Amino acid sequence: VLTRIDHVGIAVPDLDAALAHYTGTFGLTVAGTEVNEAQGVREAMLELGAAGPAAGSYVQLLEPLRPDTPVGRFLAKRGPGLHHVGYAVDDIAAELESLAAAGIELIDSRPRHGSLGASIAFLHPRGLFGVLTELVEAARD
Amino acid sequence: VLTRIDHVGIAVPDLDAALAHYTGTFGLTVAGTEVNEAQGVREAMLELGAAGPAAGSYVQLLEPLRPDTPVGRFLAKRGPGLHHVGYAVDDIAAELESLAAAGIELIDSRPRHGSLGASIAFLHPRGLFGVLTELVEAARD
Repeated sequence: VLTRIDHVGIAVPDLDAALAHYTGTFGLTVAGTEVNEAQGVREAMLELGAAGPAAGSYVQLLEPLRPDTPVGRFLAKRGPGLHHVGYAVDDIAAELESLAAAGIELIDSRPRHGSLGASIAFLHPRGLFGVLTELVEAARD
Repeated sequence: VLTRIDHVGIAVPDLDAALAHYTGTFGLTVAGTEVNEAQGVREAMLELGAAGPAAGSYVQLLEPLRPDTPVGRFLAKRGPGLHHVGYAVDDIAAELESLAAAGIELIDSRPRHGSLGASIAFLHPRGLFGVLTELVEAARD
């Protein structure tokens, strides 16, 4: 079960310029920045709203580390823009098992390390109407 | 202030096929379907999670009414996929005024009718890193 939209991922050529915009004009708060070598990105998670019910809703800005990375190829082909959507789930391992049984094509058959300590897995956009879809099980507090 | 992600909009060629997938495999609930002639779409809003804190988080599926519509042109150019992101705001008129004053390019300088009775307005993807961005002030209960 997808419980909420955890984040949207936006591919940008210049993380610092995008960060300045989203924190300045839109007033979002930086929850964390990190380099993820496995995914080939430098990224920032920006939190929407105040703490409470809205906690855990993020804009994720993604700058490729190199052109020969998934986000680098996305930028070269389509330019900056919406790259993927991440949905929160309570139990990512159970969810992957059930989706695989339903015939959904998984990019990650096992959860891996994501932003802010979450466990994440990507589903292939083929069969999902062109949408690169991510499942996110947030880190325990 | 953007308080949360209200929805992601996904452009699809066949609403019924996409609906079957999102309600079946992903277990989402249909909150409403409507035809919006002004935007040239037939659309469905699918609610994530249970009622409560997660209420108001949706996947919006958009099928163009005709090829010569914004979503029809998007499909012809890029194929199915993520079309826009909608952020919740408390006061859309005040938000538009403040964004315009900050130099953000508005598609809608005044709020118009959106899904589920909301007031909505789009911001131009130029200057927003290629992301078509929507503000959503939900209808009062």
